[in-house]
Amino acid sequence: MIIEMNQNIMESNNSRAEEIRKILEKNRLAMINFISSPGSGKTSLLEKTLEKLTEDFRTGLIEGDVNTSRDARRLERFGLPITAVNTRGACHLNSAIILKALGELPLNELDCIIIENVGNLVCPSEFDLGEHAKIAVSSVPEGDDKPQKYPLLFREAKCLILNKIDLLPHVPFDRNIFYRDIENLNPKLPVIETSCTTGEGMDTWVEWLKAFITAVLK
Amino acid sequence: MIIEMNQNIMESNNSRAEEIRKILEKNRLAMINFISSPGSGKTSLLEKTLEKLTEDFRTGLIEGDVNTSRDARRLERFGLPITAVNTRGACHLNSAIILKALGELPLNELDCIIIENVGNLVCPSEFDLGEHAKIAVSSVPEGDDKPQKYPLLFREAKCLILNKIDLLPHVPFDRNIFYRDIENLNPKLPVIETSCTTGEGMDTWVEWLKAFITAVLK
Repeated sequence: MIIEMNQNIMESNNSRAEEIRKILEKNRLAMINFISSPGSGKTSLLEKTLEKLTEDFRTGLIEGDVNTSRDARRLERFGLPITAVNTRGACHLNSAIILKALGELPLNELDCIIIENVGNLVCPSEFDLGEHAKIAVSSVPEGDDKPQKYPLLFREAKCLILNKIDLLPHVPFDRNIFYRDIENLNPKLPVIETSCTTGEGMDTWVEWLKAFITAVLK
Repeated sequence: MIIEMNQNIMESNNSRAEEIRKILEKNRLAMINFISSPGSGKTSLLEKTLEKLTEDFRTGLIEGDVNTSRDARRLERFGLPITAVNTRGACHLNSAIILKALGELPLNELDCIIIENVGNLVCPSEFDLGEHAKIAVSSVPEGDDKPQKYPLLFREAKCLILNKIDLLPHVPFDRNIFYRDIENLNPKLPVIETSCTTGEGMDTWVEWLKAFITAVLK
């Protein structure tokens, strides 16, 4: 019974995702959806990313949060158009929410939209938001077994960021296990190791993102 | 529409949770439900906990995982009765699953059942499993803003474990913010700081758990 309900939800979600794809195409927009566990450093990563991304692309933000607009407030300093979505407890963003959020952004003044999803390694991966790419963020202190334990995100992602690599000396994390599991799940997935504390890997990541957005907008 | 569906799901979940409470009472069993983000160290914490807990209580385990039975395998060495639940992608355990899992455990040979929920800071908190306590596990590298951002778990929990405190020197984590938010959400919540690496806090935690189970079984 629950599965059937999920199917109904998914069908309505997919048809709205189609609508979103049309809107993005019509407005010549790229849309990128960041997904991770709570506390993997998504917002810090976005702060570092926006500093560079906005040099080349006019960027709008959709910030999903279960209960606050705390992350949206952290990103306000960039002065970018931003829609804060408080899901009131719901564990993911769906395409109905994104459709509504897009209606509040000045689409014809933008090149790309960055979505920061609710911190959750499970549910957000199941929802097609009409985005061009899901970006998975995994962080070193979460452990090397995340791809194996939560495979859907790692299968769906167009790029994987392994964040907080400055903590490698302080936690048990076996790169061989992590990369072996990625190889099994999604062998072509680019993996970029980053640290927002030391700045390591940020240039490589921003370069990847800029190239991806450029390809979408072509 | 989605909200209405959730209500139906919740009503059927609550009625099964009632059934579970009757089963636990009849069999004189305590049931404890561990909830956290992915990678907060729940399984390691359980490993350390079981070493001590099983001195005093005959313990059974229900291990929830989205895709593998990896955590169940890690805990097998204790030789305890264990039911591994592979949720096949679902983001939480519900009372129907627990009811089924209880049917596979030798209830009349046990004093307590430990549930390790799916790694997710959002959905599992919403589901009454008929348990005597939800235990929240938060870890230092996830950041000091988790109570503020995911308040439901911290409101519902009977005890909060702040794990991986050995990483405090290496990450930005403001204890004042963390404890201030807990004070606002759930002022009577006991918070126990632990590290599975150094062993710090483990005695205090196991003492709390043993006292709680003893009180339930009285």
